Amino acid sequence: MIRFDAAKLSELMANELARQNVTSDSARHVVASLIQTSLRGVDSHGINLFPHYCRGVVAGRVNPRPNIHVSRGGASTAMVDADHAFGHHAGAVAMEEAMALARQSGMGAASVRNSTHFAAAAYFGLMAAECDFLGFAFTNADALVKAFGAKEAFFGTNPICFTAPLHDEGPYCLDMATSLVSWNRINNFRREKRNIPEHWGFDADGHSVTDPGKATSLNPAGGYKGYGLGMMVEVLCAILAGGPIGKDIPPMYTLPLGSNKRRVSHFFAALDISRFVEPAVFRKNLQAVVDRVRSMPPLSDGGAVMVAGDPEKISLARRTNEGIPIHDAQYSEFLELNREFQGALLA
Amino acid sequence: MIRFDAAKLSELMANELARQNVTSDSARHVVASLIQTSLRGVDSHGINLFPHYCRGVVAGRVNPRPNIHVSRGGASTAMVDADHAFGHHAGAVAMEEAMALARQSGMGAASVRNSTHFAAAAYFGLMAAECDFLGFAFTNADALVKAFGAKEAFFGTNPICFTAPLHDEGPYCLDMATSLVSWNRINNFRREKRNIPEHWGFDADGHSVTDPGKATSLNPAGGYKGYGLGMMVEVLCAILAGGPIGKDIPPMYTLPLGSNKRRVSHFFAALDISRFVEPAVFRKNLQAVVDRVRSMPPLSDGGAVMVAGDPEKISLARRTNEGIPIHDAQYSEFLELNREFQGALLA
Repeated sequence: MIRFDAAKLSELMANELARQNVTSDSARHVVASLIQTSLRGVDSHGINLFPHYCRGVVAGRVNPRPNIHVSRGGASTAMVDADHAFGHHAGAVAMEEAMALARQSGMGAASVRNSTHFAAAAYFGLMAAECDFLGFAFTNADALVKAFGAKEAFFGTNPICFTAPLHDEGPYCLDMATSLVSWNRINNFRREKRNIPEHWGFDADGHSVTDPGKATSLNPAGGYKGYGLGMMVEVLCAILAGGPIGKDIPPMYTLPLGSNKRRVSHFFAALDISRFVEPAVFRKNLQAVVDRVRSMPPLSDGGAVMVAGDPEKISLARRTNEGIPIHDAQYSEFLELNREFQGALLA
Repeated sequence: MIRFDAAKLSELMANELARQNVTSDSARHVVASLIQTSLRGVDSHGINLFPHYCRGVVAGRVNPRPNIHVSRGGASTAMVDADHAFGHHAGAVAMEEAMALARQSGMGAASVRNSTHFAAAAYFGLMAAECDFLGFAFTNADALVKAFGAKEAFFGTNPICFTAPLHDEGPYCLDMATSLVSWNRINNFRREKRNIPEHWGFDADGHSVTDPGKATSLNPAGGYKGYGLGMMVEVLCAILAGGPIGKDIPPMYTLPLGSNKRRVSHFFAALDISRFVEPAVFRKNLQAVVDRVRSMPPLSDGGAVMVAGDPEKISLARRTNEGIPIHDAQYSEFLELNREFQGALLA
């Protein structure tokens, strides 16, 4: 498989965004988020989305020159109006604000309205944990997850991200959709013409299907529990921000992309660990827990017991050395955007 | 089935706790929590636990006259040392503190150390939502949930509770263990000599069992996702409070109960809705979402599409009229404690 050099690709993506009139602040966060996410192995939310994002700017769905407005509601709360900015940028502004509030009062929360897709929630969670905060990041999304007991989707895959610093390595990072599997995973099976396992996806009548082409909605993780968590995320995002709920958000991918704004909502929080325990003690204690978990006897010979974020750390180490793999079809999308992306390929 | 009158039972439980030297503050919260939880139909965390709690006081595990200490760490954070109080009492003190902080600064968080079992997390979440806060309540617990990819349990059932006020009815209330099913549910199957479905429980080698007598650990909800959420709860509770993690907490039920303190940790947060949106608007908007969900076509004829907390509301309405049902064996436990509980039975 061909591979991109992360540094060269970053430069070319920034150039491309500049060419499309995107501010350097927005471009910086889009590029940093997508590169980090691809290095961490989360291909569904990394550089593969870049051509789609560029189409979103051209279509008028994403505002390349936003006036992001922050207003404080108290010593520990803020509201952010994203002005239809890239979610990566609006989210970073909001998480920085939550951290600033937490520095002053111990905890900070920021609600974001009028935003767009923010890609990996981990990008914001990691920002917080790297500064000795506990980080929380949530977003709503267009309806894809079947409501429990219903035939069709109502809420989006509404992810939960939670991060905490460790002593000997990068932060603990849980970043999970509240669906059992992602829509992208269903799409991968469709592309490879393979059947999906029972209960990953449902048809329009709400029945489990194995033909990925017939899936119209996803199963919530753990049945009614994932469904309840998805609704929790919806409340924290859309209802608090006064934005549309998943059922009313235009689909992300349906072509052609219109100029209609998607008005995605997010919610971020940061908790200052030092108000509870010395951060060094916290990091050591959590590291000890992680080390104990990893040293448990695995279920199967040769298996490994991991904590959330471990697969991403393995990928990060490997891809930092070896570059970011890219499928031919996705590489073609980059070339359609600009032939110069050829220059980011590793020899 | 025989039934208790909720009001008479409350009075007799309060008397019994007073007889055991429990302060009226502790008794008030223990009684209110257990009665509310049983009325809501959550029999695993309601009045059935009362005899167990009394044994905990006698054994010296629970402190009947605690000196609960609250210290603020900032405008939005507090730490609570529970002094081995009933978790119901310590949790209520902490949630009141989180709400007081949120009134001042928009968001409040309280970490609790040196506590005991707090029963239903919803008791605290509902306190917050009834005052127009978003409420969050978490606790750790002794190890019962199999670590993903391992043979045995490491974290407890570590529940997540999230609440939000509605316009036309009691709050939206999600209160879920991060395991697929509760240990009590396994125990019910054991008592009824029925097999459990595959993947509810595992034997000591980590293999799925259908004989409930062979289950030593539970499946996390949604596999690695529930496992990750359980660890999130552990970090918010034990690591932040400096308390023991699930693996190091003495089991709840193993007899005889020792005098060793369990040192359970909790975490609570409250978010002041009015800093983001008019509470009346929030309640109406969330009510509209709930009403839309409930009006979706059900998966099966005669089915109902519900949101988290709906089954509990149905039970609350019914049991408020009909009383709290109690199994013979559990009624006997009340009589062993004090023959006077006979006076709480409905004719």
